[in-house]
Amino acid sequence: MAYNDQNIFARILRDELPAIKVYEDDQVLAFMDIMPQADGHTLVIPKVPAETLLDLPPEAAAYTIQIVQKVAKAIETGLDVKGIVLMQLSGSSAGQTVPHVHFHLIPSSIHELGRHAAQMGDQEKIKALAEKIKAAL
Amino acid sequence: MAYNDQNIFARILRDELPAIKVYEDDQVLAFMDIMPQADGHTLVIPKVPAETLLDLPPEAAAYTIQIVQKVAKAIETGLDVKGIVLMQLSGSSAGQTVPHVHFHLIPSSIHELGRHAAQMGDQEKIKALAEKIKAAL
Repeated sequence: MAYNDQNIFARILRDELPAIKVYEDDQVLAFMDIMPQADGHTLVIPKVPAETLLDLPPEAAAYTIQIVQKVAKAIETGLDVKGIVLMQLSGSSAGQTVPHVHFHLIPSSIHELGRHAAQMGDQEKIKALAEKIKAAL
Repeated sequence: MAYNDQNIFARILRDELPAIKVYEDDQVLAFMDIMPQADGHTLVIPKVPAETLLDLPPEAAAYTIQIVQKVAKAIETGLDVKGIVLMQLSGSSAGQTVPHVHFHLIPSSIHELGRHAAQMGDQEKIKALAEKIKAAL
């Protein structure tokens, strides 16, 4: 599918929109979900333009999942939580809301998750959580 | 955490328990979830013993996610579905039920998912879905 470079994650990658970042390198960005389904809800995205995991070049997927692991460990350590839900929605039919491939890391239980992209979180609280995750990376 | 090699996925990997397999190579196995949250619910697991994504060696994660992509595409093509939920639960606190790292591929919407590991599916129906996925791989 044609990639829409005006989606909000593409704009975050171009620094046209702000984000509370926890990790960045030349291939991947990790930042806080501003509509968290649980405290510490973090998103990890490859920088290559791809709408879904199915469109993502395999080498980008391979690199991104390793950063997902790294950030997941930092969430566990930094926020002192046990249990992380990794979720990745491919396609609007699956519930994907932003058409740039993204991995959700949610320190919660699949049985207790808040609704996806439902409401804005407390930005100051999210920033404080981000600092703890960054400190553990 | 110490890996328990008596978990059911370890036993499937040793062929001590049956599974409806759709893909296998020397590093990864993909097979049907027998308690599907939607038709076509497939599991992809690395063969290396690891309890969660956080314990998995990065190179195994990198390889496994590429097979996840391949199987996801075969599900879309073979079952003619749009939209796939990738879910991976790390830790019993997250809802992980089998202590061997596994990626769920569920052709459904996050808003409509059946409950995790809730009830046995129709085995003949699952076998028929597996044949369609295999044919698309």
